[in-house]
Amino acid sequence: MDNSQLRINAGRLLADFETLARIGATPTGGISRPALSLEDLEARAWFADRIEDAGFVVRDDDAGNLSGMLYCNDPDAPTLIIGSHLDSVPGGSRYDGAIGVLAGLEILRTVQDAGINLPFHLEVMDFTDEEGTWYSLLGSRGLTGRLPVGKLGDKRGEDAAFWAALSRAGIDVNRVHLAKRDPESLAGYLELHIEQGTILQRLNAQIGIVRGIVGRTTFQMTFEGEGGHSGTTDIYRRKDALQGAALFVTRAYMLIHDRFDGSVINCGNMQVYPGMFNVIPERAVLTVECRHVESEVLTALEQELCALAEDCAAASNVELATERMEHLDAATMNADMIATVQQACDDMHFKHTSMISYAGHDAQPMSSFVPSAMIFIPTTAAEKDRASQMAVWEDVTNGTNVLLQTVLGWAQRY
Amino acid sequence: MDNSQLRINAGRLLADFETLARIGATPTGGISRPALSLEDLEARAWFADRIEDAGFVVRDDDAGNLSGMLYCNDPDAPTLIIGSHLDSVPGGSRYDGAIGVLAGLEILRTVQDAGINLPFHLEVMDFTDEEGTWYSLLGSRGLTGRLPVGKLGDKRGEDAAFWAALSRAGIDVNRVHLAKRDPESLAGYLELHIEQGTILQRLNAQIGIVRGIVGRTTFQMTFEGEGGHSGTTDIYRRKDALQGAALFVTRAYMLIHDRFDGSVINCGNMQVYPGMFNVIPERAVLTVECRHVESEVLTALEQELCALAEDCAAASNVELATERMEHLDAATMNADMIATVQQACDDMHFKHTSMISYAGHDAQPMSSFVPSAMIFIPTTAAEKDRASQMAVWEDVTNGTNVLLQTVLGWAQRY
Repeated sequence: MDNSQLRINAGRLLADFETLARIGATPTGGISRPALSLEDLEARAWFADRIEDAGFVVRDDDAGNLSGMLYCNDPDAPTLIIGSHLDSVPGGSRYDGAIGVLAGLEILRTVQDAGINLPFHLEVMDFTDEEGTWYSLLGSRGLTGRLPVGKLGDKRGEDAAFWAALSRAGIDVNRVHLAKRDPESLAGYLELHIEQGTILQRLNAQIGIVRGIVGRTTFQMTFEGEGGHSGTTDIYRRKDALQGAALFVTRAYMLIHDRFDGSVINCGNMQVYPGMFNVIPERAVLTVECRHVESEVLTALEQELCALAEDCAAASNVELATERMEHLDAATMNADMIATVQQACDDMHFKHTSMISYAGHDAQPMSSFVPSAMIFIPTTAAEKDRASQMAVWEDVTNGTNVLLQTVLGWAQRY
Repeated sequence: MDNSQLRINAGRLLADFETLARIGATPTGGISRPALSLEDLEARAWFADRIEDAGFVVRDDDAGNLSGMLYCNDPDAPTLIIGSHLDSVPGGSRYDGAIGVLAGLEILRTVQDAGINLPFHLEVMDFTDEEGTWYSLLGSRGLTGRLPVGKLGDKRGEDAAFWAALSRAGIDVNRVHLAKRDPESLAGYLELHIEQGTILQRLNAQIGIVRGIVGRTTFQMTFEGEGGHSGTTDIYRRKDALQGAALFVTRAYMLIHDRFDGSVINCGNMQVYPGMFNVIPERAVLTVECRHVESEVLTALEQELCALAEDCAAASNVELATERMEHLDAATMNADMIATVQQACDDMHFKHTSMISYAGHDAQPMSSFVPSAMIFIPTTAAEKDRASQMAVWEDVTNGTNVLLQTVLGWAQRY
């Protein structure tokens, strides 16, 4: 049977999308559905209803991942997961995560409607807390066995609030690590997502085929100087913490431009203490984040940034304490699955390009666990605030059809 | 009558000092008596009692300045004011301001005890809010007619709290400007203060004779860029507000070192919005303060700093809005009065040096109003936090005796 002409029901997908976008809608056209918030829970309840309406089996696991199952005829077959996330940052994009989950649901319905028996079960999944409201990629880390055993702590030390939120969602903090699946039971992972960048727009391409996701490391750098009266303290003898931190910010970007092309960094916050007009800054706390798609380059960059910070502190006669806050490994997508996506694009005559994802996604933990691929569609206003990151509906439809044909193509290769 | 051997009663001064230092004492040996706080009001009540105990007349004015009068025999004679302030920054030095007020009181008592009839009345004064908890130099600006007519606003926009605090101290916000005195009614102004710097210590001098007080201008510079996802936004097309602000901090200090010797600046605070790890800073708000003793140089420096900020904003592809927040004119002390202080030092064989004050003082508005002089004594730990800025007691005694002999010398010149 030739399913190469099979397409999704775009109207049905759009209807779902518009209904979902009302949950947690903000006045400026974005959405606020922070993980485990009432809005997030409402979105999940709505999604569970859609799964049931379509006749699929609703599942959830110990990490709160919510999914719908379309079983094939072979009960011992492995499962292909199609997923993303329904949660958002505050004032996030209605497309971010949501289209990946809804596209998955639509593909299950399309396959079911067409009466196709695949060599694997299909599972559409909403992963818990992709955005890191409490613990970034909680759901996909849990499913891939990357969570510590025992009580999870919140990144900001707000453990009690985190645990209360988990409890409200019916998640037992002591059992989250039990969400781990057996990779042998899985046939792979696919995710459709908006690019959140401008590359596809500039290339006038319809589909981005992700070959890797950047690794990401965050630091908190505390420059520690000495306070004092800003008038009377000899200007040549100051230990001004902000001077050290500011020099680092300036030179860190020069380092990237000069020697680490393809890397990105962000100095996202700076807090100065005591922060008064007429007191020399005695402490400046800087947050630094760096990303690269190759682990070795990221490691080298981390080392250079730490050494640079030491140099800047020394040049400003202040002390430095650097804390490595978080690290996510760089991820590589599966070559066979990439080829399957490419074939689907070529068959449908979509202009596509291979690209790197500079944002983290659930595909990041998944890709080191099972064969995985990610499909990007163009984003409008990608460099503005996140709420205004939109997609053209035709691109969503195209991306979902590529996803569908990738599923069908994978069934032949698998 | 030769009063050149007249000396203050150091034990009496020390007893006052130690009692006063208990009001608002902090565990680390400093004091917290923010202007108009309960501790400040307690210190003022205590000071009013000391004035009465010594048999002087207690006065206050519409700006809340509290003073004690020792009248000479001529009711039409002008008044020589000896003053400073009893308020402090939170965690301030027990010597800062307090020794100037207590030295004044001690001089009134010494002159009274010696039965000397001066050609002017003596008035020891505690000025309101020198430190600027609500409105810096409120009392001395009021006395010299430098306050606006009508309701005073708090610098940070906390008007209601400011007015409540004034009211608690019995000050009517609508009448503060009425504290203005007639300069013809005054014979001059003298102030003793700790240096809060290291120059006297390094020169091994006992007395600093202030020739001028630096002018001071503060700016708030808002660098306005564009937020965006820190991973996906092209690193060559970012509009990162923190990069502009950080570049300015680094280059502003270079500007001072290269071309504005004798100036000081301070970038005391930086606030970054939204201040998240993975969001490009869309706004960075920097506070900048610059000081110089010559008005023309200060003006030139202000212009260069603003131009530099524009350059740094442009180099980082962000916008800049600079607001000039506050300005205090540079002040020059009276040459005759300086000569009188010098003579007193020489007569008592104290090593002295001419110097500039890099901190603001009540002598700043006073000096453009009446002949004024300021006497500094050495400060220990001047470059540490303000609470630990101490003075050796012998230096306090010496400084007070110089102040006494200056009063007597001024009586002869006047």
